Amino acid sequence: MLRRDFIKNSAFTSAGFAILPSGTLYADNRKVKIGVIGTGLRGQDHVELMLKRDDVEIVAICDVDEGMLTMAKKLFSDAKKPLPKIFTGSNYAYEDLVKMPGIEAIIIATPWEWHTPMCIAGLEAGKYVGTEVVLGITMEDHWNVVNTCEHYKGHLMMLENVCYRRDVIAVLNMVRQGIFGELIHLQGGYQHDLRGVKFNDGKTPYSSGVEFGDKGYSEAKWRTNHSVKRNGELYPTHGIGPVANYININRGNRFLNLCYFATKSKGLHEYIVKKGGADHPNAKVEFRLGDMVTTSISTANGETILLQHDTSLPRPYSLGFRVQGTKGLWMDVNDSLYIEDVSKPHQWENAKA
Amino acid sequence: MLRRDFIKNSAFTSAGFAILPSGTLYADNRKVKIGVIGTGLRGQDHVELMLKRDDVEIVAICDVDEGMLTMAKKLFSDAKKPLPKIFTGSNYAYEDLVKMPGIEAIIIATPWEWHTPMCIAGLEAGKYVGTEVVLGITMEDHWNVVNTCEHYKGHLMMLENVCYRRDVIAVLNMVRQGIFGELIHLQGGYQHDLRGVKFNDGKTPYSSGVEFGDKGYSEAKWRTNHSVKRNGELYPTHGIGPVANYININRGNRFLNLCYFATKSKGLHEYIVKKGGADHPNAKVEFRLGDMVTTSISTANGETILLQHDTSLPRPYSLGFRVQGTKGLWMDVNDSLYIEDVSKPHQWENAKA
Repeated sequence: MLRRDFIKNSAFTSAGFAILPSGTLYADNRKVKIGVIGTGLRGQDHVELMLKRDDVEIVAICDVDEGMLTMAKKLFSDAKKPLPKIFTGSNYAYEDLVKMPGIEAIIIATPWEWHTPMCIAGLEAGKYVGTEVVLGITMEDHWNVVNTCEHYKGHLMMLENVCYRRDVIAVLNMVRQGIFGELIHLQGGYQHDLRGVKFNDGKTPYSSGVEFGDKGYSEAKWRTNHSVKRNGELYPTHGIGPVANYININRGNRFLNLCYFATKSKGLHEYIVKKGGADHPNAKVEFRLGDMVTTSISTANGETILLQHDTSLPRPYSLGFRVQGTKGLWMDVNDSLYIEDVSKPHQWENAKA
Repeated sequence: MLRRDFIKNSAFTSAGFAILPSGTLYADNRKVKIGVIGTGLRGQDHVELMLKRDDVEIVAICDVDEGMLTMAKKLFSDAKKPLPKIFTGSNYAYEDLVKMPGIEAIIIATPWEWHTPMCIAGLEAGKYVGTEVVLGITMEDHWNVVNTCEHYKGHLMMLENVCYRRDVIAVLNMVRQGIFGELIHLQGGYQHDLRGVKFNDGKTPYSSGVEFGDKGYSEAKWRTNHSVKRNGELYPTHGIGPVANYININRGNRFLNLCYFATKSKGLHEYIVKKGGADHPNAKVEFRLGDMVTTSISTANGETILLQHDTSLPRPYSLGFRVQGTKGLWMDVNDSLYIEDVSKPHQWENAKA
C-alpha cells in the first residue's frame, strides 16, 4: 500500500503503458515481445501493468539486484504468466538482453546514468526503445542518443508520463484551440519533497532512515548521489515535457538560451540531522545540489520558460505549471501555506506513522 | 468610486501614510509641514489622507497640470482646510517648492523619470523626502540618490506600500520567528493587468480607450511610454521590497548577480486592435517591453530570488509572493484558470460596464 500510495500521490503513474490503446496492438492477436532492463520498484510497476495485457509478452528481464529480481519474478507467478529469461550477474548483462532473438522492444527503468548506454545498445540492436526519464547526464549523452537514433533510423521514446496527465492534456487541447491566445510564458518544474526517497534504512524504501548510497535501498542507493555530486536542474522533463508540447519545440520552435541559479544546499543536511542526529556519519556529507534551482529558457518564437527544481525541502507536491498567453492563463499551483510539523504530514510520513 | 475601487483592489493603498501612528506625531501637538510634488490621481490620494490628520499640514503643492491642480485644491476646500501655496507653470517649479521656508518634508508622486531629480533637490534643500516608487530609471540615478542622501546625511524613504500589506508583515513576523527555518528561495513580482491603465480616452483614467502619451490621461500620459521605449523589469519594488526585508538585504546580506529574460511583446498591441480597431494609429506602435519579464537574482547568503513583471496580458492581480525555507513555504498565488472574456471581468472593465 505504501508504494502504491506514493506512486499515486506522486503522479508517478506509468503513462507509457497506461496510454496504450485498450484493444490489442496487432490485428492478428500477435503479442509484442518486450524485454525490461531494470526491475527495481519502478520497473516492477511497468512489469505489473504489462502482465495485465494479453497483447504484450515480457520475454526477458534484467537486473543486478537479487532481491529486486526475486520480487519481479513473483509478479509473473502471481499473474500466472511464464517466467521470462533472466539476465543478471553484471552491470553489462543488458548487452545480452538487447541482442536476444525475438525481442522487439525494450523498456529501461534503471538509474539515470545507465539510460544513455542502454538506449544506444537497444537502438544498435534494432529494438524499439522506451526509457524512463532522463535521457542522459551530459549534453554529449543526449546527442549520442539522438545521433544513434538517426543513424539506425530507430524508434525511441522517453516515457515522460506527465505529458499524459489528464489536466496537462486538457490544457494542450485548449492551447491548440487558441483559448489562451498566442502563448507568451510557460512554467513547470519538479517540486517534490524527495527527502523520504533520497534516504531510508537500507531495507524499506521511504522515510525509514537517513542512509543512502551503498547503505541505501531502492532509489536512495543511486539517486541521492546525484545530489551529492551535481548541482543544477537534475530532473527537468516533468516540467519541460508538457511545456515543449504546448509551444511546439522541435516542431517549428526551439530552445535558444538558458540561465540557471542555484541556492545554497541546506535541506538534505537538516533532514539527516533531524532524523538521524548530528552524530550520524551522513551529517558530514556535503551536498552540492542547491535546494532550489531556477532555470530560465528563451525560445526562437519569443516565449520564455521557467523551470524550478525543488526536491530537498518540506513542501506539498506541485509541478507548478503555468501556461500564459494573450488571452488567458492556467496556473497549477500548491496550497498557500505549508509548515513542516504543522501542516498535514506528507504522504509517506503519514504512511510510516 | 471607480478610482477608489481601483486603488483598493490593486493593493495600491497609501501605506506611507496609513501606517503613521494614530496618535499625533509630536508631543507638543506641533504640525508637520509638508509639501507635495505631484498632485495627479496618486498624489491626490496622499493629499486626501493627510488632510484627515491634525498633526500634518500641507503647506504647498506642485503640479504642471491645471486640471489635476484644480481637483487637488477642491480636496482642501472639501476638508475645510486652508489652501496651500501652489507651485506650477514649469517642470522645474518643484525646485522652488523644496526651498520654501518652513517646509519640513516633501512627498513625491510624479512620473517615474522625475523621482531622481526631485529626491535630490529635496535632500539638497535639507528636507525629509518620501517618494513614490521607483527611485530612478538608471543605475546611475539610484547611486546619485544614495550618494546625495549620504552626503547630506539626509532622510529618504521610498514609499513601497506592499512592504506594509497585512499578510506581508505577518509573514515577516513568521520569518523572524524562524517558522520557515533558514530561508532558501523567494519570489515576488508585479503581475497586474495594466492595459486599462496604460490606455484610456484622454479624459477618464481607466479602460476608456486606446490613447496614451500626449493624447492620454493620468498614467497613460507618461507610464505607457516606458512600455514603448524600454524592455526589462520596469517596476521591481512591489516584489523586491518585502523580499529584501525577509532576507535582510543591506543588513548583512546583499544582491550578487542578476539575469533576466523577456518575452516577445504582444499584449498591448492586441489590446489596441481589439478595443480600437486595426486601423487605429496606435495599432502601429511597436512596444519594446516584453509581456513577461523574468528576473533571477542571487544573494551573498545563498538565497535566490525570482521576480516576474507581467502587466500587458489579461490576468488576475497577484504579486506572486513565495517565501521558502528549510521548514516551510508561503505562496501568494492567483486562481488556477483565467480566460479573458470568460472569467470574471477585471475590476475596471466591471466598473466601466
